[in-house]
Amino acid sequence: MTAPTVDEAAGGVLQGVGVGRRAVVGPVAQVRAAPAVPADAPLVVDGEVAGPGRVHDAVERAFAEVAAGLREQAAAASGTVADVLAATAQMADDAALRSQVLTRVDAGEPPVGAIDGVVEMFATMFEQAGGYLAERVTDLRSVRDRVVARTLGLPDPGVPRLDRASVVVARDLAPADTAALDLDKVLAIVTELGGPTGHTAIIAGQLGLPCVVRVAGAADLPDGTVVAVDAAAGTVQPDPDDAVRDAFERRRVAQAALAADTAPGATADGQAVALLANIGTPADAERVGAVAEGIGLFRTEVLFLERQAAPTVEEQAEAYAAVLRAADGRKVVVRTLDAGADKPLAFATQPDEENPALGVRGYRLVRSHPELLDTQLAALARAQDATGATPWVMAPMIATPEEARDFAARARAAGVVTAGVMVEVPAAALRAGDILAEVDFVSLGTNDLAQYAMATDRLRGELADLLDAWQPAVLDLVAATARAGAATGKPVGVCGESAADPVMALVLVGLGVTSLSMAPGALPAARYAVRRHTSARCGQIAAAALDARTAREARAAATALVDPEVRTTLAL
Amino acid sequence: MTAPTVDEAAGGVLQGVGVGRRAVVGPVAQVRAAPAVPADAPLVVDGEVAGPGRVHDAVERAFAEVAAGLREQAAAASGTVADVLAATAQMADDAALRSQVLTRVDAGEPPVGAIDGVVEMFATMFEQAGGYLAERVTDLRSVRDRVVARTLGLPDPGVPRLDRASVVVARDLAPADTAALDLDKVLAIVTELGGPTGHTAIIAGQLGLPCVVRVAGAADLPDGTVVAVDAAAGTVQPDPDDAVRDAFERRRVAQAALAADTAPGATADGQAVALLANIGTPADAERVGAVAEGIGLFRTEVLFLERQAAPTVEEQAEAYAAVLRAADGRKVVVRTLDAGADKPLAFATQPDEENPALGVRGYRLVRSHPELLDTQLAALARAQDATGATPWVMAPMIATPEEARDFAARARAAGVVTAGVMVEVPAAALRAGDILAEVDFVSLGTNDLAQYAMATDRLRGELADLLDAWQPAVLDLVAATARAGAATGKPVGVCGESAADPVMALVLVGLGVTSLSMAPGALPAARYAVRRHTSARCGQIAAAALDARTAREARAAATALVDPEVRTTLAL
Repeated sequence: MTAPTVDEAAGGVLQGVGVGRRAVVGPVAQVRAAPAVPADAPLVVDGEVAGPGRVHDAVERAFAEVAAGLREQAAAASGTVADVLAATAQMADDAALRSQVLTRVDAGEPPVGAIDGVVEMFATMFEQAGGYLAERVTDLRSVRDRVVARTLGLPDPGVPRLDRASVVVARDLAPADTAALDLDKVLAIVTELGGPTGHTAIIAGQLGLPCVVRVAGAADLPDGTVVAVDAAAGTVQPDPDDAVRDAFERRRVAQAALAADTAPGATADGQAVALLANIGTPADAERVGAVAEGIGLFRTEVLFLERQAAPTVEEQAEAYAAVLRAADGRKVVVRTLDAGADKPLAFATQPDEENPALGVRGYRLVRSHPELLDTQLAALARAQDATGATPWVMAPMIATPEEARDFAARARAAGVVTAGVMVEVPAAALRAGDILAEVDFVSLGTNDLAQYAMATDRLRGELADLLDAWQPAVLDLVAATARAGAATGKPVGVCGESAADPVMALVLVGLGVTSLSMAPGALPAARYAVRRHTSARCGQIAAAALDARTAREARAAATALVDPEVRTTLAL
Repeated sequence: MTAPTVDEAAGGVLQGVGVGRRAVVGPVAQVRAAPAVPADAPLVVDGEVAGPGRVHDAVERAFAEVAAGLREQAAAASGTVADVLAATAQMADDAALRSQVLTRVDAGEPPVGAIDGVVEMFATMFEQAGGYLAERVTDLRSVRDRVVARTLGLPDPGVPRLDRASVVVARDLAPADTAALDLDKVLAIVTELGGPTGHTAIIAGQLGLPCVVRVAGAADLPDGTVVAVDAAAGTVQPDPDDAVRDAFERRRVAQAALAADTAPGATADGQAVALLANIGTPADAERVGAVAEGIGLFRTEVLFLERQAAPTVEEQAEAYAAVLRAADGRKVVVRTLDAGADKPLAFATQPDEENPALGVRGYRLVRSHPELLDTQLAALARAQDATGATPWVMAPMIATPEEARDFAARARAAGVVTAGVMVEVPAAALRAGDILAEVDFVSLGTNDLAQYAMATDRLRGELADLLDAWQPAVLDLVAATARAGAATGKPVGVCGESAADPVMALVLVGLGVTSLSMAPGALPAARYAVRRHTSARCGQIAAAALDARTAREARAAATALVDPEVRTTLAL
């Protein structure tokens, strides 16, 4: 073990990129890499080295058990966690992987060497392939570690058994590892690798756990070290003193108090700002509760992922009706299938896109698979009839007024009358007026909007400084969209992750955005921040951000105008 | 052979997407796929089936000959053609490909089966990998066809020997096939597949050949059929009558007359619009001649591609000095390395980007490889000292004012005082004022700007309607950049392919662009169009385009305001 890489001048505080606003203090529990098992380690049964036949059986059983275990975990999870677990289970179930290992084993190769050899061959192929497959190498190796352990009868590697509430620290965390954690005992997640929009961060966000990623030196923190994890500041401080602990506790109490407020969102002078929740499943809708005034983004693609064929009208109608019933008369905005890019579908995605984020994704699938959209709209109309609710529907990845018009025509023909589109392509923001002439509302997806406006992949951690919703050019596009909304008198919402930053929420309100949709856990802070500022003050905060030349300056200028008490309570 | 798929109602005219403005009439010469050779076809030597040893030698020699032939073709070519030939030669030289074939041959497999088996394995791997590798499958199969032919002593497949000036037609054309054509006898290129920004189109543009891609039914045209190919209209008309032939001849004469005009570019009322050439090599610079007022874009990446290490300061300085000498005192704008994305470098590119177009490309390489930029700037300064010329230098893929400032500081520190940046990221266009505060000039790359503004990959033919420089939102970004140039009094050029469209050239001038840089062959039409309109008229044409809601409407509205004689002469 090497000594922690700490910056002594800063009191040993490790710096990373925070996800969320919460702060906790707790002992470190490191997730260690699987112990190295020599490639020629034999399978020993009853004190004797097992022959190929028994090794064959052991390996086959190990693959089956690992796949079954992951499937079970997937069934118990929901949303993104369930998706990634199901994908990892598929990997453990892969016939080619398994049969190539068994062929080697049958030829007399020791089990670990056989598994390692085949897995590394696949990993190399995945890495050379790049893209989505390269991203799966972590999962593939985690399958390898589990299968090796099961074959040799060793304990499952990776995830520690937590005997007390702990801060889980890892160099990197495979999604399957995250899901295997005993969540009741996880206080926070800290990783050396990953990025603020990566799997770990997204899953931590969904689980409501404070998380700090890209923390150099975190993996060297000794087990049991007490650390103060501040997601708002992106810091991990070993051995915090009482002052830090007290400050954290005060923040915890203050933030907990905010959660009790479930009044409709509004500025201090009473301008309504609808505060809505982003969800992926009917179960999510049921969990939202009174904290949201409705569902601002129902991501329907969860119904479609990891399936060999699209769900039927009946299946979809049932899911949509369940969400509408859970919303109980409150607003529900359903986004049609946003597949492609980082969400490939077995039955619809283009197989060989060089740049899937710039390819046939979202609404563009209608060019090759119009039946997917039409089925979805028919199902939504059926859910509408069954529940008496009137959902809004919107299409992702709209770039032009023609696409907006075509989508609205399809939605209305299906019987869903309130139709809008996502604004996440820069062209749509620049021409929001022409687009709003065709539809009833728009909703800004700030993550993708920043991705395209800055020409910077959401998946690339090393370009994170460019990929920032605070980039003034991204704010320009939001402002242009909001102006078009004001000019036409139509709603302009934001359902990107940037709405979850309370200072950004004030900027968005100041720019003229009429609703904010975010992970439910982020709503109390946004509600509190909005309530404590007048609409005029929000306008000043927005103007200060627009006047800045850099993302850092924009955030600083906006934050400087935030009410001091809000800054303290939310640790801004 | 099936009958041609022609639209009888339109007089049998086949429609595609044209590249360039020229029109020619000539007989069809089809490039056929290699004849099928059975997988178990034996190698017969002296009337006897050869044994594994002789097959081994024949296959090894075939690979070597094919690689050598491609390398020779590459050496004789220049620019993009040379690049793709060199890349294909590398494929034929690939040790893994060759050794796996030889292993099968040594085990007694017949040569064609062995070559096919291994090539298809690689092709499948490439296709699964997607992206750049998937694009190379056409080249891989063309290597396969050549190696099979050489091994069995058959004539090289694919490219017909042209015995007269012909219109070369193919389902698809591997770059190596294009380069193997006897160019003196090629009148035009027509393909069923490909796209307007694909390899075939780019190479045809560089060779100055009229080209129409995506022509359904073209591969079914019988050899020898006389066709009228109109690149401006994107049409291929079999058996044209005398009226069509006469009209084409008049266009040819009129367009040839335009080429004689080499006066500096200016509007009818005398507003200067510098007309410049895009080049990739010193040889290109020598060929430009008097048609251009200088070099508006010297793409330096040609010096870096297909190498295992970056060229030295000396090598680069020599190449830059050669271009400066060829320019003979005229303006030269050098773009620093635009690697990454579709131009990977062995020594610098990120290996596993999911969306390389949104990744570490262009100026962003300075984050990991600052020495590449510093070496380039040092070499440019040395070429400047050696020639007494004063080149301008600009960086590609700048997104923020900070990047612009950092680049200008590096350039000036190296001794290259006039520093600018490409505007091809939407954020840079939106914040062009902040960027021009840091640099001396900007140059719009309209291809990439449209790619990001529309979130549409340049490589995806099926989304070509979205990826159009005539999209009003793209024009908005050009307009914003030109406004910033006017406000700061600094030059705003365009060096994207859209400048080669004469109507777009008028729009760009009307928006306030001060120079247009394009393939040298497109300059006469642009010069003529600009000279025949006043700057006020250009402003009206630009305003009409900006007022449109769709790309089609924008182009139609602009074209309607173009001088009728210009419309006729240029077949607009």
